[in-house]
Amino acid sequence: MWRSNIGEWFNDILFNAGIMDTRYPVKGLYVWLPYGLKLRNLIFGILRKLLEEHGHQEVLFPLLIPEDILRKETEHITGFESQVYWVTHGGYEKLDVKLALRPTSETSIYPMFERWIRSHADLPIKIFQVVNIFRYETKMTKPMIRMREVTTFKEAHTAHATEDEAELQVQEAVKIYKNFFDQLGIPYIIAKRPRWDTFAGAKYSIAFDTIMPDGKTLQIGTVHNLGQNFAKVFELKFEKSDGNHEYVYQTCYGISDRAVASVIITHGDDLGLCLPPEVSPIQVVIVPIPFKGEEGTIQEFAKNVLSELLAMGIRAHLDDRDIRPGEKFYYWERRGVPLRVEIGPEEVKDKSLTIARRDTGERELIALEGLETRIRQLLEGVNKNLCRRSREFFEGMISNANNLEEIKRYLNEKGGIVRAPWCGREECGMYIEQQTGAGVLGQEINSKPITGKCPVCSRESSLTLLIAKSY
Amino acid sequence: MWRSNIGEWFNDILFNAGIMDTRYPVKGLYVWLPYGLKLRNLIFGILRKLLEEHGHQEVLFPLLIPEDILRKETEHITGFESQVYWVTHGGYEKLDVKLALRPTSETSIYPMFERWIRSHADLPIKIFQVVNIFRYETKMTKPMIRMREVTTFKEAHTAHATEDEAELQVQEAVKIYKNFFDQLGIPYIIAKRPRWDTFAGAKYSIAFDTIMPDGKTLQIGTVHNLGQNFAKVFELKFEKSDGNHEYVYQTCYGISDRAVASVIITHGDDLGLCLPPEVSPIQVVIVPIPFKGEEGTIQEFAKNVLSELLAMGIRAHLDDRDIRPGEKFYYWERRGVPLRVEIGPEEVKDKSLTIARRDTGERELIALEGLETRIRQLLEGVNKNLCRRSREFFEGMISNANNLEEIKRYLNEKGGIVRAPWCGREECGMYIEQQTGAGVLGQEINSKPITGKCPVCSRESSLTLLIAKSY
Repeated sequence: MWRSNIGEWFNDILFNAGIMDTRYPVKGLYVWLPYGLKLRNLIFGILRKLLEEHGHQEVLFPLLIPEDILRKETEHITGFESQVYWVTHGGYEKLDVKLALRPTSETSIYPMFERWIRSHADLPIKIFQVVNIFRYETKMTKPMIRMREVTTFKEAHTAHATEDEAELQVQEAVKIYKNFFDQLGIPYIIAKRPRWDTFAGAKYSIAFDTIMPDGKTLQIGTVHNLGQNFAKVFELKFEKSDGNHEYVYQTCYGISDRAVASVIITHGDDLGLCLPPEVSPIQVVIVPIPFKGEEGTIQEFAKNVLSELLAMGIRAHLDDRDIRPGEKFYYWERRGVPLRVEIGPEEVKDKSLTIARRDTGERELIALEGLETRIRQLLEGVNKNLCRRSREFFEGMISNANNLEEIKRYLNEKGGIVRAPWCGREECGMYIEQQTGAGVLGQEINSKPITGKCPVCSRESSLTLLIAKSY
Repeated sequence: MWRSNIGEWFNDILFNAGIMDTRYPVKGLYVWLPYGLKLRNLIFGILRKLLEEHGHQEVLFPLLIPEDILRKETEHITGFESQVYWVTHGGYEKLDVKLALRPTSETSIYPMFERWIRSHADLPIKIFQVVNIFRYETKMTKPMIRMREVTTFKEAHTAHATEDEAELQVQEAVKIYKNFFDQLGIPYIIAKRPRWDTFAGAKYSIAFDTIMPDGKTLQIGTVHNLGQNFAKVFELKFEKSDGNHEYVYQTCYGISDRAVASVIITHGDDLGLCLPPEVSPIQVVIVPIPFKGEEGTIQEFAKNVLSELLAMGIRAHLDDRDIRPGEKFYYWERRGVPLRVEIGPEEVKDKSLTIARRDTGERELIALEGLETRIRQLLEGVNKNLCRRSREFFEGMISNANNLEEIKRYLNEKGGIVRAPWCGREECGMYIEQQTGAGVLGQEINSKPITGKCPVCSRESSLTLLIAKSY
């Protein structure tokens, strides 16, 4: 079902693996369950660490943005207006100024930048926050993919003294995001979005897309060069070392709950979740196999193994519930725990352990004394295998096309992403969208272009256009 | 100024120590700055850990609550109605059902409890979340104390099969909160609130109050026994082992940003923050004292000390900015860093360090080889001293009174909390409020009552009433 009906698989697994409860009585709002929240925190922990290592500082801004400030940047509000939730009343009173639930935080953060930036010595500013944002989605909502409350939005905002620095910041952001998705084993392709799909208010937008098992792409991260657009509107001026004043150059970049969705969907299978060890809330689960008369020694042995694993810094859990081992196997397989350790009378007698891998189902018997080395090898093995598997699938879903017929054929036959030569002119991109009913992800970056003629105007082309059906 | 004008001191230090920027353009909303956010995360990290150790699981519920559900429990909505922010529009559309920004989450969480609870085997449920909540405050707002967006609200919610279990849960919550505030060195008194100050919808409320330097009390934590009130409204029934159905018994308990405010205010002094080592974002700051010609060796020595401290698991920072040491001293004193290590040519020559304590200002020279032991001793010493200091002040602000005149005199002369014998009748408590212009915190619990006659009705009394002026 994972491959054949990914939507249903995803909805089922969210609840059955203790990730999210989708029955909250408002459309597009969902409840994070304990296991899911831990997974989400581990995933965003990696991102936080990367951002901090690259000199970003975490802050926290208010949720509410006054209408007049949200409206300052014209393109920006035009892009978001149809999706903004408005608070109009406090208690019994009508508010003088309506307050927006942030759809994104440029307009809450930049008025403070105006107070923080005086001279070149105050630059660069590199901050981020992890917050909830709100979009009044009218399309079909989906947990983690398209929500009315995006519960986890990591957004970074930077300000720089020169255009070049802002450009370098975009590159740093792309590097950080690559590193992040690489650690999660999520394959991606990077594209500069076409103008009509650029972030409202930005000079240009770069996006990361991955491919779902059904062949549709999912946008999982975006990086925007804002130029001086917002700086001019919010009066973000600084004094240069020569005494002149100039507007700052800005960038912003975001990753949402979709990172969690892509971990779940990319690595899952028909049994349920299959989590990369780095982000699995439990990395090793110990299941005692009871045997009449030996319950005590088995339990004791299991507890020792647990202590040893915890001392190694492994997130280990001993499942000593009073249910059958088979039920426990099923329970933890569904939750994607990378390794299962089984301990029965044989293992106790031989001071050994049976270890089962979630990703391959392989089981092996190891000696207790080799525990640490072997567990680390196996966790690394699971990680590598998940990365390899997802990469293989991803690469198999990318096709090179040379004309409109081929583009259509690949899109219809297997979906995924179609690469085609592109002259770089907008009208040719839009024509392809019209003709194929698919979307243009934009111009591929960071890779070797395919050469050929633009499938629309037949001009010799040096750019690569990416076309796909998307979520 | 810390003692004489705590309000101004607090506002100044929030910005000057990098905790919060209070200039966000909406009343009652503030911006957490990086250093402040780290402090807040460390403080709530302690609370998270305690809750998890006591079997609570972290979840995350949506912010928005439909009006019809918020209105279900009559007392509850009556208590909050005047403070609820209402979302009435999404994009260009008027919403069919208004959505409240949660003022607290009983009514968002309990409809899900209804889905989760079937039988006694599903109980107890013990969950918590750390979220932003909203109150349309019409009183004067204050950062961390009275905000329109309470940015950090830890709320726990539990459901139990019996009244006794719920009662035990209240006691567990009180124990957890005591432990939490003890770790922070925040003194408190615990009171059962009078009926007119009980949480809207609860059977009774217990609250923790501390005393600010100006003698006014601040409520810093609350624990509520909800009885079956919400259970009856939200149909939270379970099947008992005998096959009968009954409503669950519930509790909830919360701690907000006020925990951060009380750490800042309780331990601060005229120089600025003075943080308990356990929650200080930086525990040891290293300041090189430059000396012509020896900058290189000093820098190298300082880096080695830094590595050693980091390897010990200490949050250490080397301040190698190009400004005078005196400026650095001032900067880090204001930020409350417990220990400062100074390294100049003498120290390098002797392989020694000068260490200065933030709390006492004492300086001492230690040998490098004794670093780990001495640093740990000093951090523990700072912690003990802060706890002792705050406890002494707190105890000095508690007075025992036997009649109305004494109550008034203590309240006027030194503020703080006045204890008085109480018959337990509401009208006597209310009369005292009227006569003194102060508030009744309620009936003191967990301590030996003072004996005597109720100052209003002169009945022999076995309860202790707490009276104070409060924030």
